[in-house]
Amino acid sequence: MPRWIEEASKRRRYLVGVSGGADSVSLLHLLHRSGFGSLVVCHLDHGLRGEESREDARFVEKLAKSLGYAFEGGRVEVAGLARGEKISVETAGRRARHAFFAACARARRCRRLVLAHHGDDQAETVLWKLVRGSRGACGMGESQTMVMGGLEMEIIRPLLEFRRAELRQWLEQENLSWREDPSNAQAIAVRNRIRNEALPLLEDIAKRDPTEALIKAANSDAELRQIEAWAVEQADVIDPQSRIHLPKLRTHPEVIQRACLFSYLRQAGVSGVTRSLVDRALSLTDPESPPVINLPGGRALRRRAGRIWVA
Amino acid sequence: MPRWIEEASKRRRYLVGVSGGADSVSLLHLLHRSGFGSLVVCHLDHGLRGEESREDARFVEKLAKSLGYAFEGGRVEVAGLARGEKISVETAGRRARHAFFAACARARRCRRLVLAHHGDDQAETVLWKLVRGSRGACGMGESQTMVMGGLEMEIIRPLLEFRRAELRQWLEQENLSWREDPSNAQAIAVRNRIRNEALPLLEDIAKRDPTEALIKAANSDAELRQIEAWAVEQADVIDPQSRIHLPKLRTHPEVIQRACLFSYLRQAGVSGVTRSLVDRALSLTDPESPPVINLPGGRALRRRAGRIWVA
Repeated sequence: MPRWIEEASKRRRYLVGVSGGADSVSLLHLLHRSGFGSLVVCHLDHGLRGEESREDARFVEKLAKSLGYAFEGGRVEVAGLARGEKISVETAGRRARHAFFAACARARRCRRLVLAHHGDDQAETVLWKLVRGSRGACGMGESQTMVMGGLEMEIIRPLLEFRRAELRQWLEQENLSWREDPSNAQAIAVRNRIRNEALPLLEDIAKRDPTEALIKAANSDAELRQIEAWAVEQADVIDPQSRIHLPKLRTHPEVIQRACLFSYLRQAGVSGVTRSLVDRALSLTDPESPPVINLPGGRALRRRAGRIWVA
Repeated sequence: MPRWIEEASKRRRYLVGVSGGADSVSLLHLLHRSGFGSLVVCHLDHGLRGEESREDARFVEKLAKSLGYAFEGGRVEVAGLARGEKISVETAGRRARHAFFAACARARRCRRLVLAHHGDDQAETVLWKLVRGSRGACGMGESQTMVMGGLEMEIIRPLLEFRRAELRQWLEQENLSWREDPSNAQAIAVRNRIRNEALPLLEDIAKRDPTEALIKAANSDAELRQIEAWAVEQADVIDPQSRIHLPKLRTHPEVIQRACLFSYLRQAGVSGVTRSLVDRALSLTDPESPPVINLPGGRALRRRAGRIWVA
């Protein structure tokens, strides 16, 4: 049984995203069997498969009721949304899901959302983010805070340690049914090509399963980021007025100075902190440099009397 | 001009690996134009292309002499070596090169070796290591220590920030010649498939150049590892007798304890430190656990009186 499922409070309320596919149906049954008493099953019909989509929704609603859980259903014409806003179907689907989950969270006064992403999803995400230029082999967190539809939500992914095939096998063993190919706008185009073309090609080249390797890479990347956060804390460069104390900052190696500046800018709410922004921030540590750097959103990073701060 | 080439002492002696291909020929000319006065051009004929291989060697020797540099040539029948030792041609080629470079280092009393790996090589390495299960998006270092043929060598790769196409373009601009397809056992099978199949497929899926993204990932991974090394230093868990001081270790979060144990085991010369070994080492921090853990190579990790050490 996944660790989070074992350890979490069973009486707390959680939203659970359930498409009706094998992954989320496994998740729901696992939560049910572990004694979770107050779940809200949330299903968004993306309207991408016509009558099939409606049957997915009915299947999930029935399943929720049979397990004694509340149900929240929604329906969006994702394809039309994508055309109307000139965005990809994936992006439209993600926006629609976020808005839907936020609406469920408001209606049910619960900001905890459990999702069924598993190890194969994790591997696909790592590879995808990597070729798009993310920092390191960054995957999805088992527990992370995310803003959805303006609401800060806690996302929990208890199945990251399981493989897709394991979940299916378990459902079959237990004689539990699910819907094949539920309407899931995420599982289109790019993600499918990563899954059906890129990963098999890499497996053929490496003569081993790259998915396990990518999951492992995501785990060690998550560890390295925890180490980074600890290092920033140890570096102890923030003064009582929440500004960066320059004489202290300068005692550290450049790589630590960068990490501190990155973390400070993020925490100051500066959006889209890039490497080149951190480079410019680093230039402020030189007392001979101009004392102000413009930030996105009309804000600025200033240096005065041995301190740096966002104003 | 690459930073290392600008900053390095021009009077020091360096070995330079030159196959005769565009990459290493660019490197040699760049070093020459920057005033490096005491290079030893090292060329190993892998014997993989018959008469062509010999012409590569003659080309490199002539080039070295024309630039006023010393030349060290060697020849190995890599294919025969691979058959005889039942290893892949890549592995045989790597071993032969390492032995050759070590011999050059001994003959010339110089352990600094400059190699022509560039950004495309870096991206291929990252992807390759990643699907084989390395820790994070780990690439080649711009400067790293490596044991070759029993000798500790300093490897320098000044061209990692350049792309293959840039180097070729520069050679053409400058009217400099090179050998196409020099005998390089590294550029076989797996690496070729990563280059010619995996990267183009990922580019087609992502609609952007994954090579840049992979280089970026390698750079941030290298930074995270520097941060980790700094964090281990800050954790300050080593006592004056070079043992781990358990009460101090226990004050840190688990992820830092792991990093400290990993680093300690590596520095104690334990080979092949895996995650599961670190897990077992971590169990020693529990005073109720058995006080000895066997290590590879007949050694052991012991706990006594609040200390852990390799014996």
